[in-house]
Amino acid sequence: MGEMKAYLEQHRERHLEDLKALLRIPSVSTDPAHGGDVRAAAGWLKERFAAMGFDVAIHETARHPIVYAEHMGAGPQAPTVLVYGHYDVQPPDPLELWVTGPFEPTVRDGRLHARGATDDKGQMIAHVLAAEAHLALNGKLPLNLKFLVEGEEEIGSPNLAPYVEARREALAADAVVISDTSMFAPGMPAIVYGLRGLAYFEVEVQGPGHDLHSGLFGGAVANPINTLCSLIASLKDEAGRVRVEGFYDDVRALTEQERAAWAALPFDEEKFRDSCGAPKMVGEEGFTTLERSWGRPTLDCNGILGGFVGQGAKTVLPSKAMAKFSCRLVPDQGSEDIGAKIKAHFEAHAPEGVKVEVRELHGGNPVIVNAEGVAVGAARAALAEAFGSDAVLIRSGGSIPVVSDFSAILGIPVVLMGFGLPDDRLHSPNEKIDLDCFFGGIVASARFMELFAATRG
Amino acid sequence: MGEMKAYLEQHRERHLEDLKALLRIPSVSTDPAHGGDVRAAAGWLKERFAAMGFDVAIHETARHPIVYAEHMGAGPQAPTVLVYGHYDVQPPDPLELWVTGPFEPTVRDGRLHARGATDDKGQMIAHVLAAEAHLALNGKLPLNLKFLVEGEEEIGSPNLAPYVEARREALAADAVVISDTSMFAPGMPAIVYGLRGLAYFEVEVQGPGHDLHSGLFGGAVANPINTLCSLIASLKDEAGRVRVEGFYDDVRALTEQERAAWAALPFDEEKFRDSCGAPKMVGEEGFTTLERSWGRPTLDCNGILGGFVGQGAKTVLPSKAMAKFSCRLVPDQGSEDIGAKIKAHFEAHAPEGVKVEVRELHGGNPVIVNAEGVAVGAARAALAEAFGSDAVLIRSGGSIPVVSDFSAILGIPVVLMGFGLPDDRLHSPNEKIDLDCFFGGIVASARFMELFAATRG
Repeated sequence: MGEMKAYLEQHRERHLEDLKALLRIPSVSTDPAHGGDVRAAAGWLKERFAAMGFDVAIHETARHPIVYAEHMGAGPQAPTVLVYGHYDVQPPDPLELWVTGPFEPTVRDGRLHARGATDDKGQMIAHVLAAEAHLALNGKLPLNLKFLVEGEEEIGSPNLAPYVEARREALAADAVVISDTSMFAPGMPAIVYGLRGLAYFEVEVQGPGHDLHSGLFGGAVANPINTLCSLIASLKDEAGRVRVEGFYDDVRALTEQERAAWAALPFDEEKFRDSCGAPKMVGEEGFTTLERSWGRPTLDCNGILGGFVGQGAKTVLPSKAMAKFSCRLVPDQGSEDIGAKIKAHFEAHAPEGVKVEVRELHGGNPVIVNAEGVAVGAARAALAEAFGSDAVLIRSGGSIPVVSDFSAILGIPVVLMGFGLPDDRLHSPNEKIDLDCFFGGIVASARFMELFAATRG
Repeated sequence: MGEMKAYLEQHRERHLEDLKALLRIPSVSTDPAHGGDVRAAAGWLKERFAAMGFDVAIHETARHPIVYAEHMGAGPQAPTVLVYGHYDVQPPDPLELWVTGPFEPTVRDGRLHARGATDDKGQMIAHVLAAEAHLALNGKLPLNLKFLVEGEEEIGSPNLAPYVEARREALAADAVVISDTSMFAPGMPAIVYGLRGLAYFEVEVQGPGHDLHSGLFGGAVANPINTLCSLIASLKDEAGRVRVEGFYDDVRALTEQERAAWAALPFDEEKFRDSCGAPKMVGEEGFTTLERSWGRPTLDCNGILGGFVGQGAKTVLPSKAMAKFSCRLVPDQGSEDIGAKIKAHFEAHAPEGVKVEVRELHGGNPVIVNAEGVAVGAARAALAEAFGSDAVLIRSGGSIPVVSDFSAILGIPVVLMGFGLPDDRLHSPNEKIDLDCFFGGIVASARFMELFAATRG
């Protein structure tokens, strides 16, 4: 391990440049205008894998391609690890809030800022660079490696499950490793054993056929913005509970053991509040901040638009209004079931005088993984060595829909070893990854490969 | 009158070109980027009046100038009429819904389409062209004329009342004529004797200090869009009543006589519904459509914006959200009083975890004018001659805040003789004025000058 650490120390500058090159490609998967950039990022990865001696292919899907690469040189007696990551990123809006451009990666105060720095290009490529280091130092890998890097994670991975299903044998492995989560705090690594699911919706309310003068028509026709606000307001009560009928039916209660373990974590509520700049933490009554964000379902608006939003006053009664909102789900809620319940709620509450349309944009189920297996054990040991502190077991409020797919389809353990931090601002302006996390992640990945290989034989 | 009608018939093409020239100037008063255009429209009017032999001046205000022109050649024995109008227009958004450009006036099917066609350039200039016709035919006017044309009506005329107050003597007249309202229906002219007032607000809700990942933070912080929707929803109940405390305290009840008179008007509810393209007319329980839009106060959102509103899904928990909304007021509500009540409502309802700021953008009081005087009588007779049908007495749901100022400061009758139609789409895309209304308005104005002059001596 000493030799490996020294090698990685020497190559930091080059590893950083590698990541920057990938971050410069604006591979925004949700925006059709960036289709070419998404493909360019896939091409960049393909070349990167090919240069390392991996067998690599671009596998087409209905939309954005999957990059699949494998190196089976360790032979059938060695274990095989499947690394999953994604090369697509969230949209960078609102652009004006970025200190430096979202696709101009820039280091400030030991942090690399760019869209995708932590989610997920920086975390995913740590494994690529760790494999490269093994090949450079020893001419071989400690175990067999398969990489599946997709370009549709940020749009809900619509084509991944069928792909995994169809290639079940080719993807066979002893464990799946995913680095798309956070450590608990700086210097305190973590294994995530639970993720929330997601159900994302768009609702449009159409009132009059065209914008009207609010004086001449106001009072006599339904206003689509007022109506939309009432519908959104009807979704939650003042205690922060979702009022959609049956929403909590399948929510698995937190165990006393879990609540105690989370309460024992060195969680700094004031620092967390400060990191998000909110005047006060608020949420569902009867739960702590960690419980609210890790173990309880949510309903949050993500966007809303209607009428005149320029400077000054325009007395328009607009013809329509639109909102986007999404639910984070916890076991054992299902995104399809929640989608049906949300639609039923809107059908029951849509008033006269408007047309209300709800569309489900994407979804994914929540998941709890087994935290007791040998793969998780090797990952915890590797993280502890790399970061100099024990790896705690935590959940995350985020969603990686494919985790449940990997569990269900491949039937192998999933190891969520994240190199991010809670203040990484993923999905927000000025996303970053700490350089300590990025370089530590490469060390942890390299060490994991050795430790997991050693569990066999 | 026969000679005048023949003259006006002959000059239709030129009158239309005159109006088009003014409509091509995008004098949007609310948008600072159009400041130069507002001034250009004032300059255009100044030259127009000067060419007709009026004494004309541009009077500066704190923002957009007032064009003042007078022709006192009829002498002290003749009555004097003050014509008020405005040369500023509403913003043209949303641009993509215009069939032809908002500032490229275009005639289709006997209608001239452009922003300001009916509100108020087309109606205001009808009086200018009528005066010009008298001067061309007879070398003089039947009465003395003063024109006050402002550039701030669409932003609430913030500088007009002080101006009128300061120039009370210079503005002395026997009546004020304002054409900024609608006829009851095509071929059925009307005098408007009541207008609603206005109180316009902008509310901003700030939650987190920056956009957050809805998975990592969702459930633990207040969402500003959800909060804003709940606040907006709290303003009205399901029966369409405003729930702001004290909102109805000063509302003057409609008289049985008024309700009967309105019920007797040939109002085609289905045609009205069709003209605004709404699936159904809805509003405050217990009132008819005309009562809701003429005689009852409202609260309508005019715009709303927050978070991600682009294509696809972005799982952001946004830092802030904003809405614009306004109340139409009826006698004896006061816009300042309503403003205070609205602010108190938001203070009482703002939840923890967010900052809520409400700003009042502009306001104006409702008004009822005397419909029995000689000026209104002359106007009704002129309208009847010009359009071949009796002029009915109606109210309007719109607001012309200066009407109450003119009444209060100058102490003279206000005559609201409108040449628009209810389907003119003012404040909306594809605003228009029917050519029959425009040309008929010039006839009516020219005839009104003669009839009102004849009431003296």
